[in-house]
Amino acid sequence: MDPQDLVVAGTRRQKHVDEVLDRFFSLAKNRASAIGPRYLTLWQTLEKNTSGGKRFRPSMVMGAYESLGGTDLEAAAHVGAAFELLHTALIVHDDVIDRDFIRRGGVNVSGVYRDFAQTAGIPIPAAEHRGLSVAVIAGDLALFYAFRLLDRSGIDGEVRARLHDIFDEALFASAAGELFDVDFSQHRSMPSVDEVVDMERLKTAVYSFESPVEAGAVLAGASDEAVRALASFGRNIGIAYQIVDDLLGVFGDETATGKTTIGDLREGKRTVLIAYASERPEWLEISRWLGLPDLTWEQAAVVRRALEDCGARAYAEDLAREFANRAADELDSSALPDAVRDEFRPIIETVLGRVR
Amino acid sequence: MDPQDLVVAGTRRQKHVDEVLDRFFSLAKNRASAIGPRYLTLWQTLEKNTSGGKRFRPSMVMGAYESLGGTDLEAAAHVGAAFELLHTALIVHDDVIDRDFIRRGGVNVSGVYRDFAQTAGIPIPAAEHRGLSVAVIAGDLALFYAFRLLDRSGIDGEVRARLHDIFDEALFASAAGELFDVDFSQHRSMPSVDEVVDMERLKTAVYSFESPVEAGAVLAGASDEAVRALASFGRNIGIAYQIVDDLLGVFGDETATGKTTIGDLREGKRTVLIAYASERPEWLEISRWLGLPDLTWEQAAVVRRALEDCGARAYAEDLAREFANRAADELDSSALPDAVRDEFRPIIETVLGRVR
Repeated sequence: MDPQDLVVAGTRRQKHVDEVLDRFFSLAKNRASAIGPRYLTLWQTLEKNTSGGKRFRPSMVMGAYESLGGTDLEAAAHVGAAFELLHTALIVHDDVIDRDFIRRGGVNVSGVYRDFAQTAGIPIPAAEHRGLSVAVIAGDLALFYAFRLLDRSGIDGEVRARLHDIFDEALFASAAGELFDVDFSQHRSMPSVDEVVDMERLKTAVYSFESPVEAGAVLAGASDEAVRALASFGRNIGIAYQIVDDLLGVFGDETATGKTTIGDLREGKRTVLIAYASERPEWLEISRWLGLPDLTWEQAAVVRRALEDCGARAYAEDLAREFANRAADELDSSALPDAVRDEFRPIIETVLGRVR
Repeated sequence: MDPQDLVVAGTRRQKHVDEVLDRFFSLAKNRASAIGPRYLTLWQTLEKNTSGGKRFRPSMVMGAYESLGGTDLEAAAHVGAAFELLHTALIVHDDVIDRDFIRRGGVNVSGVYRDFAQTAGIPIPAAEHRGLSVAVIAGDLALFYAFRLLDRSGIDGEVRARLHDIFDEALFASAAGELFDVDFSQHRSMPSVDEVVDMERLKTAVYSFESPVEAGAVLAGASDEAVRALASFGRNIGIAYQIVDDLLGVFGDETATGKTTIGDLREGKRTVLIAYASERPEWLEISRWLGLPDLTWEQAAVVRRALEDCGARAYAEDLAREFANRAADELDSSALPDAVRDEFRPIIETVLGRVR
């Protein structure tokens, strides 16, 4: 999932974060050059894999920061860039775990190095392992320098310590979520709905929504009550977004979302829909088809119908609405100024607009 | 390589670092418990993979620190523990890259999770990938928290910033070294001696020798001249150690070193010996056998003889001596007090004692 389409910040913030990342990569590439051209290539590949996004997480940081009255945009852009680089680290390693060589239509780090190896005459299983090996290294660099960028924000003392703790929570959560995801995908028994929601929250919602807005609020010097309300907003809208993502992965409009509606079914991905359906009589039909790598569109249509018939679709939609409404309630907190509501209500509306 | 046998610090320092790591893991396990028992298991596995060592890198930090007059042993133990956890992160990910499931006779993180998966009925290729996937996550945690431990030392201001920079250099170097190692192992052409030495320096010597003594010196508030001399000592003795490690991997006494003398040959590992031999007429004979996974002891004896005949062994021994002597010269710097020489000379003697 990549909530690119929720970006409300406009290009100004994006540009600011891009400038911070450009400076960071220029410096790193200079250092890498001094070690050798091969290392420079790795850094160039990592930079390419970090660019081109809409900078969703930074825009959450900066949205919280500015709407709470923060004015040091340079510091906020650094904190945003740190979350962006953390995002790169996590997806580069997630792709290693999923053995994916493609992301967003282009080759990822693993793919670039697999292709280098193949061009050099290395046969495909070894070339793939070569690609994944280099991606392990690249992800380590992104992870380490994400945390370093946080320190380059120029913030010190108590605020810096709190930002470190928030970043720590984000990484601690996403590692747990990734572990649970690996666990689910390789066990035959189905996780419960609660387990799936928990995994999605840990793996993605914390570091993409909750931690960025919390960091922005802390950086802005907001009250504890405001920080708590905004973090809770982030947590709830993040979960709602993930559930909508599960829905769009099966029932979406491919031309509108740009996301296939057959991939999740072919992969047998453990989603809220599937967890709910696994305890209904229709499961007998669904489980026959789920996870077949060559599932046809006709078979997918059968699964979709069964997911509707057993109530899984309606259940997931209700659940997404419930979390989005909780997010809206948090945003209504009297501890938060109107500017915060103006900033983040569009995200709630976007999420709700995706549910029938 | 793991220079456990170079430890001169005795058990006091080891115990201090163990206490810091125990506290760190206790805290992390408590947090993990709150997320779920599966996450707790991952942290327990990571802790087990961090324990049992002789704490070589921490002893380098503390040796430099104490011999330069430092007295805040708690701070030094934290910096040492940070290097130890960095070591864990790097070997856990190195094992992913090498597809190793064993380390020092026991299963590593990948091995533990491969075995869990097999017990759960997952067949071997998928179970192995499961093991490697969890090791990617575990290594990320170790890497991130290594840097966090540095901050828990209680050091602030200029010294903290310099420690961060040293740690940064260590990671930046080891990622480059790992990249070059991956590159060498999967190309048919042989790297030059200089390239191998450079790779070994970057991959291991910097983070194991140079950066730890440099960090200890900075923490002790040593003069720039003393820091420079000690860092240069660390760099040179680290390279010497790696070359000796290459020698012992082929010509060592297995009962004395506990290290097989056939593994490197079966693996076709690119070492100083091999790089040198690849430009001699004897290479024709050596290259016939090098890298055969089922190389016999008789064939290995043929390779060993050819490595001696072509002068590779003598060359590597001279080179190791040369770097060890440079290290000794640095240690003689007038910027360093005698206590530093008393602390680190035994390491030079151990390295030289390993060369005929």
